[in-house]
Amino acid sequence: MSLIIQKFGGTSLADAEKIHRAARRAIRAKCAGKQVVMVVSAMGKTTDKLLELAAEVSPDPPKRELDMLLTTGEQISIALMAMAIHAAGYDAISLTGGQLGLVTDSAHTRARIQAINRNRLDCELESGAIVIAAGFQGVDAGGEITTLGRGASDTTAAALAAVLHAEVCEINTDVDGIYTADPRLIPVARKMSVISYDEMLEMAGCGAGVMHSRAIEFGKKYDVPIHVRSSFTDTPGTMIMNETKGMEDIVVRGAIIKANLATIVLTGVPNHPGVAATIFAEVSKHNILVDDIIQNFYDSGRMANVGFSTDHAQLGEAVEVCSRLSAEGGFGPVEVDDEVCKVSVVGIGMRTHTGVAAKLFNALAKARVNIHSISTSEIVISCIVRRDESHRALRAIHDAFELDEPPENEQ
Amino acid sequence: MSLIIQKFGGTSLADAEKIHRAARRAIRAKCAGKQVVMVVSAMGKTTDKLLELAAEVSPDPPKRELDMLLTTGEQISIALMAMAIHAAGYDAISLTGGQLGLVTDSAHTRARIQAINRNRLDCELESGAIVIAAGFQGVDAGGEITTLGRGASDTTAAALAAVLHAEVCEINTDVDGIYTADPRLIPVARKMSVISYDEMLEMAGCGAGVMHSRAIEFGKKYDVPIHVRSSFTDTPGTMIMNETKGMEDIVVRGAIIKANLATIVLTGVPNHPGVAATIFAEVSKHNILVDDIIQNFYDSGRMANVGFSTDHAQLGEAVEVCSRLSAEGGFGPVEVDDEVCKVSVVGIGMRTHTGVAAKLFNALAKARVNIHSISTSEIVISCIVRRDESHRALRAIHDAFELDEPPENEQ
Repeated sequence: MSLIIQKFGGTSLADAEKIHRAARRAIRAKCAGKQVVMVVSAMGKTTDKLLELAAEVSPDPPKRELDMLLTTGEQISIALMAMAIHAAGYDAISLTGGQLGLVTDSAHTRARIQAINRNRLDCELESGAIVIAAGFQGVDAGGEITTLGRGASDTTAAALAAVLHAEVCEINTDVDGIYTADPRLIPVARKMSVISYDEMLEMAGCGAGVMHSRAIEFGKKYDVPIHVRSSFTDTPGTMIMNETKGMEDIVVRGAIIKANLATIVLTGVPNHPGVAATIFAEVSKHNILVDDIIQNFYDSGRMANVGFSTDHAQLGEAVEVCSRLSAEGGFGPVEVDDEVCKVSVVGIGMRTHTGVAAKLFNALAKARVNIHSISTSEIVISCIVRRDESHRALRAIHDAFELDEPPENEQ
Repeated sequence: MSLIIQKFGGTSLADAEKIHRAARRAIRAKCAGKQVVMVVSAMGKTTDKLLELAAEVSPDPPKRELDMLLTTGEQISIALMAMAIHAAGYDAISLTGGQLGLVTDSAHTRARIQAINRNRLDCELESGAIVIAAGFQGVDAGGEITTLGRGASDTTAAALAAVLHAEVCEINTDVDGIYTADPRLIPVARKMSVISYDEMLEMAGCGAGVMHSRAIEFGKKYDVPIHVRSSFTDTPGTMIMNETKGMEDIVVRGAIIKANLATIVLTGVPNHPGVAATIFAEVSKHNILVDDIIQNFYDSGRMANVGFSTDHAQLGEAVEVCSRLSAEGGFGPVEVDDEVCKVSVVGIGMRTHTGVAAKLFNALAKARVNIHSISTSEIVISCIVRRDESHRALRAIHDAFELDEPPENEQ
């Protein structure tokens, strides 16, 4: 019998009516002959409210106790969802992370899944019940309650899909799919019908906050298609799946902005072997997240400017570290720009098609967007641009690659 | 090392400030050299709010899912309490019913404790941590989450006190002790310094709603003194404990009203062997709770009026059952009085002292309270009276037995 995972996020469970709506979607799948496992998040703003309670009690609560607190949110949701399905006349059973057999390491608030014991799940599914699993939570080997990090109910869903060999992992959410660009910025952005795991990973990494990266990695690793769709309509969303032959025909699948970046550049760095290594080792030691590395050479390659982009929130610490490095090494001034963004285009077609970069730079030039630096990977090209030019840049790119037009093989 | 159990009810945990206050009480006990186990209820009105949520989703939720839902309330409390103690610089660890090793039967919403596995508790206590246990909840042998019934955090506390051989089980609550009568009705009512388990059980059974009866039974069975005291002041409350020699000198320890009763009497019942048995078997079959039995004979003992008092809420069903019995047996009319209360005096001294009933009847006669019926047990005398005369009756009794005066051996 085929099995489907249906994950519902907090906005899809915000009140009794929405819970019943989600319950009906699960019941429809059940009636269509599938085994159904629902994965639910905490209702609406529950997690934020619990965090506020914690903040009222302690400025720095122990992580174990935070997990103890926050996991109640999903426990409330699973109980109510089971009640809703029962009220509609169908069998359902709620399972906490522990009852689910979801075993993690002991890293409270950011635990990693180690194993899922299928016994209880199989038993309940064979009895014909819709299983309602608490997202986001697990237990460690000692029975301590753990959580997988904010937004990680997606990860629970993908992990269950992998273990249970689900035909699809549905992510029911408050958006109706993945768009070629943020539709709030680009009104003509188009909902994609498919996107590959790798593209979606890059989109998520570049700032498209629809899904948890780890969930996409699970889907990729275990080849489970992930269907991102609206909880509130029955129209199909976007399928995140393995590449098919035709998907390589699309050179650029989407364009994104990563906002709130800053760049820090150490100037006047002698280009000796090991200098860059020393700099980035020190930066990494301070847990500063390096987004992209910026490097250029001058004076016939004897000197270099070495820098990186990072999250705006880490700028203060990054400047401190770099200033110390510059003083110690006798380099030039540290140049900081905290008014930048990164615009990127993503597409697996770049592997086999040429001329993408040229088309991108041409589009930005025509739109009079100044490019601060460029970075490329196999399926991404990114440009650091001024923040106040970033929306214009995104529009120019979206137009240039005609992302509003459905690809020929999807028409 | 001596060990203390400190239970805090919902009103004592209603906000962050109250949680810190409770934490300080535990820390003081810890600093005084004791091992400390706190038992906490859900904060404020949390349980009621969760029940409202359930009612919005389902008119008749499965009991297993109700337990899944309601136990989140205590889980929130234990996490926050552990955070509060940590914030004050002391070690604490929260434990759910399952982590606590509290194993129950599988009767969801009204489970009974079967065993408490000390391993985890001992381990945490030996490490020096204040243990914060979730009240009200346990797990069955299969790992299903169960609850012990509304108000049963007291029972958790008393059971832990028994298993851990606590020197005392503190019930920290919103009243500062057990009074000789409800102080809202009798302003001169006096807080007792001690009361025996048996007396407290009768007081609770007769309507003094301070504590869960099962908790008192645990205390009695395992000889753990229970200290009922205010969460908000440091004055001692009332110690519920085993009888001591001097306690028998007190003939009447307290007086209570059980409100919202009704009486139903089948008249004209032939006094044949087995007739009363048939009547009460039928009543019991319909789960109607019989408070006291009322019976009197006439016609030289050949005929009887047979009836009982019951909770007002069950009156409709009781009348239906009795009317059918009367019709089938060819008895006289069924007489109903739904405007009655029961006033009772309680005291273990009654076992050895005579004249209590006479003094009680005399006091009620002087106050012109009409007595409908009388029932007695070893340490209780109760009278059914009209509801509108019940407060007058309570005052008269409280005066007659001089309950506002501290007993000589307590001065």
